[in-house]
Amino acid sequence: MDDRTFAVLMAGGSGTRFWPLSRRRRPKQVLPFAGGVPLARAAFERVRGLVPPERVLVVTGADQVAALREILPEIPPDGFLVEPAPRNTAPCLGLAAVEAERRRPGALLLNLPADHVIEPVETFRETARRALARADAAGALVTFGIAPTRPATGYGWIRLGPETAPGVHAVARFTEKPDAATAEGFLADGGYRWNGGLFAWRADAFLGEVRTHLPALAEGLDALTADPARLGGIFPGLPEISVDFAVMERTSRAEVCLADFRWDDVGSLEALARLLPPDGTGNHGIGALLTLDGGSNVVVAPPGHLVAGIGVHDLVVIATPDVTLVCPRDRAEEVSRLVKELRRRGREDLL
Amino acid sequence: MDDRTFAVLMAGGSGTRFWPLSRRRRPKQVLPFAGGVPLARAAFERVRGLVPPERVLVVTGADQVAALREILPEIPPDGFLVEPAPRNTAPCLGLAAVEAERRRPGALLLNLPADHVIEPVETFRETARRALARADAAGALVTFGIAPTRPATGYGWIRLGPETAPGVHAVARFTEKPDAATAEGFLADGGYRWNGGLFAWRADAFLGEVRTHLPALAEGLDALTADPARLGGIFPGLPEISVDFAVMERTSRAEVCLADFRWDDVGSLEALARLLPPDGTGNHGIGALLTLDGGSNVVVAPPGHLVAGIGVHDLVVIATPDVTLVCPRDRAEEVSRLVKELRRRGREDLL
Repeated sequence: MDDRTFAVLMAGGSGTRFWPLSRRRRPKQVLPFAGGVPLARAAFERVRGLVPPERVLVVTGADQVAALREILPEIPPDGFLVEPAPRNTAPCLGLAAVEAERRRPGALLLNLPADHVIEPVETFRETARRALARADAAGALVTFGIAPTRPATGYGWIRLGPETAPGVHAVARFTEKPDAATAEGFLADGGYRWNGGLFAWRADAFLGEVRTHLPALAEGLDALTADPARLGGIFPGLPEISVDFAVMERTSRAEVCLADFRWDDVGSLEALARLLPPDGTGNHGIGALLTLDGGSNVVVAPPGHLVAGIGVHDLVVIATPDVTLVCPRDRAEEVSRLVKELRRRGREDLL
Repeated sequence: MDDRTFAVLMAGGSGTRFWPLSRRRRPKQVLPFAGGVPLARAAFERVRGLVPPERVLVVTGADQVAALREILPEIPPDGFLVEPAPRNTAPCLGLAAVEAERRRPGALLLNLPADHVIEPVETFRETARRALARADAAGALVTFGIAPTRPATGYGWIRLGPETAPGVHAVARFTEKPDAATAEGFLADGGYRWNGGLFAWRADAFLGEVRTHLPALAEGLDALTADPARLGGIFPGLPEISVDFAVMERTSRAEVCLADFRWDDVGSLEALARLLPPDGTGNHGIGALLTLDGGSNVVVAPPGHLVAGIGVHDLVVIATPDVTLVCPRDRAEEVSRLVKELRRRGREDLL
């Protein structure tokens, strides 16, 4: 890619649905779920074939930056953009766009979450090149449309419109978190894709649409452009909103690039059942496990630690030195409720 | 009690049904389940009001003796009788009887497991005095008959015969591990007691019945009497058999002393639900626990460790530094199967 292209790794947040594996200072994106490699490291390797480390921007939080610097030593110190407060993806990507445009006017951005699993990498790069080319040529805001594999109710679905360029379509409609029957229909229809949360756009095109659809954010970003040193004062006041809701679902410039790589957002501990192959007893996990008359559990334990079970099925069991978690696989998303409750009780030491 | 009386604490074995809390060198009898006090310590305190520490004999194994010495510093070194190999209760109590008789001819023995919970202690002592008096006067082998509180299928039940002394009855019949319907009948009948595994007898009376009913054991004990230094050579060759099966169910001298103290043999991790009062969420445990939409679990965790659950009910969850156990409460007895399997796999480090 030419020297206008930047890769943005969205690496904020601790991933409370991965607690107790993820902690504030050891967030989900540094956990080794990408075949033993930290997720953010795998994301970096993924974009490395497209841009040099000097043009990778990592947007993250103060609690997470140390762990990320450690696993991404190739990225220069000024490649880490630290959000003074988490403000969801619209301000995050606004900050990245402003910074990229400041460094290289005419900047072209490939934005991707640092905590997803994507394979194979060559398919990803081919898709990214296609999305970036269309974004550059047409000023489109291009999202990556993942081929759906199940009637997921937790994702945004995109109805494909007419093809605008090879493998890129207009967006006919976004549907965020459909009910189960609707999702079944979308899956059967074949004309739908998941919104994977990966985006390609020119900084100027994106910032223009922000100005149209979310002026409060545009004003803040203007102030940042004028004086980058005011980040700590400006950022926490920006509207806390997702880029999907604030921009993508409103703009007429949204397009979707068909993405046929394997994708998983590793949304909860349950995802480990998809990412880790089953052992001889039908359990999935990292670490030692011994079950009698049990199976289909998701287990993570530190090296040298044994999780032993009798007659337990479809449970998530996470053993860490200070916390043990036990819950049914189909309630794994509720782990964030435990995190909230512990915060309420002042147990930040465990978070 | 006069100086012929000895208390024998049966403290062998590691308690595999308490794994992973119990380990070979940290057996069940040193775990703090007696209201925060190690079970064996509570057993010692229980007999202390009857005999001085010099007349307490602790029969245990080589793996367990160090932990027991530590929690029972008042007992002189020669009070610990170390079995060279576990041989069940008949050889254990034979060894104790031989040793007591050697130290004080005419010895009278109060034998009790070191890993039971018994309260209140004054009722226990009153019962023990009654049992010892009858054993001394009549040469009876007196077991303690626990008032049954549930139709337990795992215990031995005793049908009471005629009263032989105040609060002491002849044994009409032993029934070991009845089926559920039979146990229900025994409980409803009212004329049955549980065999608690506590015994009072004169050494000479017990050894005489051993000679009649288990000559192979009597021969070995004779050899030990002749040369106590040969323990290591003789003991492992003794028949491995319980005193109930070998002697109590066969002798005509068996009697049962009514015991109205609260008694629990702490037979499995499930017993902790009886011994530990429920917390505000209906869970029982030692250590920190946070459950959402769950309850009736039995949880043990080290200080500072949190067990967090979502939607889990009636589970046993044991967190230790190197092992986590998860199983339904009603399968807690099967923990010993896990221990066997780990032994088969050569994981003695975890046992």
